[in-house]
Amino acid sequence: MSDKETVWKTAITQIQPNHVRVRGYDIADLMTKLSFGGAVYLIVVGQLPSPEIGRLMDALLVSSIDHGATPPSVLAARTAASTGASLSASVAAGILSINRHHGGAIEECARQLNAIVRGTKQTGKNLDEAARASMDEMKKTGRRMSGFGHRIHTADPRTARLFELARQAGVFKDHCEAALAVERFFQAAGKPLPINVDGAIGAILADLEFPYEAMNGIFMIARSPGLVAHVVEEQTREKPMRRIDPEKHAYDGPPVRNL
Amino acid sequence: MSDKETVWKTAITQIQPNHVRVRGYDIADLMTKLSFGGAVYLIVVGQLPSPEIGRLMDALLVSSIDHGATPPSVLAARTAASTGASLSASVAAGILSINRHHGGAIEECARQLNAIVRGTKQTGKNLDEAARASMDEMKKTGRRMSGFGHRIHTADPRTARLFELARQAGVFKDHCEAALAVERFFQAAGKPLPINVDGAIGAILADLEFPYEAMNGIFMIARSPGLVAHVVEEQTREKPMRRIDPEKHAYDGPPVRNL
Amino acid sequence: MSDKETVWKTAITQIQPNHVRVRGYDIADLMTKLSFGGAVYLIVVGQLPSPEIGRLMDALLVSSIDHGATPPSVLAARTAASTGASLSASVAAGILSINRHHGGAIEECARQLNAIVRGTKQTGKNLDEAARASMDEMKKTGRRMSGFGHRIHTADPRTARLFELARQAGVFKDHCEAALAVERFFQAAGKPLPINVDGAIGAILADLEFPYEAMNGIFMIARSPGLVAHVVEEQTREKPMRRIDPEKHAYDGPPVRNL
Amino acid sequence: MSDKETVWKTAITQIQPNHVRVRGYDIADLMTKLSFGGAVYLIVVGQLPSPEIGRLMDALLVSSIDHGATPPSVLAARTAASTGASLSASVAAGILSINRHHGGAIEECARQLNAIVRGTKQTGKNLDEAARASMDEMKKTGRRMSGFGHRIHTADPRTARLFELARQAGVFKDHCEAALAVERFFQAAGKPLPINVDGAIGAILADLEFPYEAMNGIFMIARSPGLVAHVVEEQTREKPMRRIDPEKHAYDGPPVRNL
Repeated sequence: MSDKETVWKTAITQIQPNHVRVRGYDIADLMTKLSFGGAVYLIVVGQLPSPEIGRLMDALLVSSIDHGATPPSVLAARTAASTGASLSASVAAGILSINRHHGGAIEECARQLNAIVRGTKQTGKNLDEAARASMDEMKKTGRRMSGFGHRIHTADPRTARLFELARQAGVFKDHCEAALAVERFFQAAGKPLPINVDGAIGAILADLEFPYEAMNGIFMIARSPGLVAHVVEEQTREKPMRRIDPEKHAYDGPPVRNL
Repeated sequence: MSDKETVWKTAITQIQPNHVRVRGYDIADLMTKLSFGGAVYLIVVGQLPSPEIGRLMDALLVSSIDHGATPPSVLAARTAASTGASLSASVAAGILSINRHHGGAIEECARQLNAIVRGTKQTGKNLDEAARASMDEMKKTGRRMSGFGHRIHTADPRTARLFELARQAGVFKDHCEAALAVERFFQAAGKPLPINVDGAIGAILADLEFPYEAMNGIFMIARSPGLVAHVVEEQTREKPMRRIDPEKHAYDGPPVRNL
Repeated sequence: MSDKETVWKTAITQIQPNHVRVRGYDIADLMTKLSFGGAVYLIVVGQLPSPEIGRLMDALLVSSIDHGATPPSVLAARTAASTGASLSASVAAGILSINRHHGGAIEECARQLNAIVRGTKQTGKNLDEAARASMDEMKKTGRRMSGFGHRIHTADPRTARLFELARQAGVFKDHCEAALAVERFFQAAGKPLPINVDGAIGAILADLEFPYEAMNGIFMIARSPGLVAHVVEEQTREKPMRRIDPEKHAYDGPPVRNL
Repeated sequence: MSDKETVWKTAITQIQPNHVRVRGYDIADLMTKLSFGGAVYLIVVGQLPSPEIGRLMDALLVSSIDHGATPPSVLAARTAASTGASLSASVAAGILSINRHHGGAIEECARQLNAIVRGTKQTGKNLDEAARASMDEMKKTGRRMSGFGHRIHTADPRTARLFELARQAGVFKDHCEAALAVERFFQAAGKPLPINVDGAIGAILADLEFPYEAMNGIFMIARSPGLVAHVVEEQTREKPMRRIDPEKHAYDGPPVRNL
């Protein structure tokens, strides 16, 4: 297309006959050299990840691939599916249920940790002091810290693993340290609220300099296979228009098995 | 929960305090041992993929991560975003635009190739004969073969790469061979319609014994990062309520660069 | 726009400076001369309704405006809302849950009644004979009649009222009569399955020569205010991320009052 | 259900065997005594409208039933439909494109007019003075008044008609007067920005004491028939996967005709 006909521009993917280039890289090359997690980093951040960051991105996506049948995104997707909605319409009902109160803790925690990190730079305080100042300020204004504590898990195995991989990838930096400082603050205050998986993802994405406004998208990408699996299970295993009880269900899949 | 209180069951993910197990496997283990592509295979098919199949799944997802700004899923997502829709609502608009005529060629081609493969088993014909019989039958009934030919690409670099990786993973089997037979049929008929990326994915997923009803879901998962990137670009780069021309846009991202 | 620049056409609404014309009629005139029900008829069918048909359309839409908190469209909409989804995203989650098994009985019943009506014309049978033949045929092929019987209501007050208004409007014709014939068939067979509200709407829309493919849309239009009301109630009355029990809720609104 | 089993409550619709009561009123009665516009008022506001307000609500809904093929909600719905999305999924894509920048002017204008009305009460200023103060304040903080001016219409016939009907219904009060004051302000400032249809609806809904958070829902309800009509037209008239040009289309429906 000649330039004068062009009315708007995009910096994501270039399409030419027999060439597809994502952020400048040939897609056939990307297919062999990057995992999907690495490609997610590339397409959102715009830069090629190191192999370690690519692996970390995969771990981060795998950590959020599914959390059983109770999350609202799954309930919305199954409810749509039970009326006869197509796979895509059902998955869409799930995706549009990922918002501030479901998945949103990733971005919110990242922004809150960033406020603490900025606090250290502006005031010369250390992380523990800046965390305490932030927590005190939030308490006064009636806000609460996102990404800490979990309804079910007291020691979330996903959090520990994510931080371990972040250390290995050399990206366990200010925001991850700030998350630990907040954890220490809660511990000292007698409220053991460990970092949860959303908080860990938020801390890591912030340390990766991921754009904040795209962070909730990482949860959507990560959870999409879970939504697909739940919708297909609903469509193939259940009767239409059933009343889907959000609590009274149990797991009857393969027993515990080792990798 | 006691058994008598349970009213329905799911075989996907088991949630217990401090344990999340996907298809029986501990998620913290999966986070280090599987790429996201491998985890997608596990959660949909229910079995652990070999490392080669895991890599193939990643390549397959990367191959469809984005195709520029013209596909209807991107236009729907950007159109929603331009009205002020949230990231999740915009991505949902994109996902629900993935259907029979957009992404659907994967499942349709897989089913059509399977009809050819079954044809060889039922009639003793070889693949070329069975492919010809199928094509003749489809012509009579006014149907057309999905997954062949492309509006833009005559030699899609993604197709060749996918088949190469499928061979390396040892899963280039009947359905992939049937795809080549169909390609030979078109060639012989003077209509050079090469297998396109959807057709290759369909053939490979069929050879992986992927459930047909979940195949379109693979495209949704694969395309979700592209949708996230486009929506974020729309939200951060464009004015609200602009008229989004589906053709008159150009790429202005990073120049061609090598991995 | 000059004709040669035009690439596609629409026959619904003409926009010119200071003029909006729906199906040819000036919208400012429509605003005073048609109720919304009448305008729905006009925009979908393309013809101006008689005043009686306009009133019937209003009654038909009012009959389906809401059915409490248990229908899946409401549960999907509330589930989305509880995650922080916007009003429009939540209502959209409700709309995309209106499908074959929820609202879809309108179109299906209309088509089934039409098969009976066509049966009388093709075979010379009377409606009762044609209804019996249809029911027998459906039984053999494992299909069931849509639009008859209700989980909660044995004598749905909405059905009687709709048929009464259809008679007054002079549009109680073949399809409505066929619905009564099916009701007599069930009665005679010892299965008292009265016409339900979906069945009555389907019969009436068929007698109004409404396009079948738009019938489910009437349910979407009719239910949209209910969805809006439920989402606003969820957003203003409930806490985010609550577990929405699909059964254990009760009504606490205004007591029974008379018009 | 016994009270102790109830875990949540709704004040919208009561369902009992053979009874459906909306905000306390029997639905079969509502079907004959209220138009759909009146029922929309009842279900959202919770009170029975006067006959005049019922008619006004119908006029208000009819005024926004459609605005041709260019609004983003129609483009999103048609784009989804062109991929093979169902009627409900396509309409949902349209609904979720109704947001702050499309339809949202109703609520925003209503809130801005309310600020002016409150201004008169708090300061003793008259409406023109309060309007000027509001406009000056908004200019300083870089905000703009919603609901005034139109891309296409300089004298929107819908606005005049709506205000006329509001006067007849006796609900042309403070907020409608404030809208006129703003119009006078723009006139005096040499920027003739007449109230547009969204502004008029916002002013009237505010004078009707409609809840602000539900106002955008009125636009969704009003526009749903237009979306249904456009999706059915797309599905029945156009080929799948066409490139939908947002501008190069023309009207080819019935010629101008009189009521």
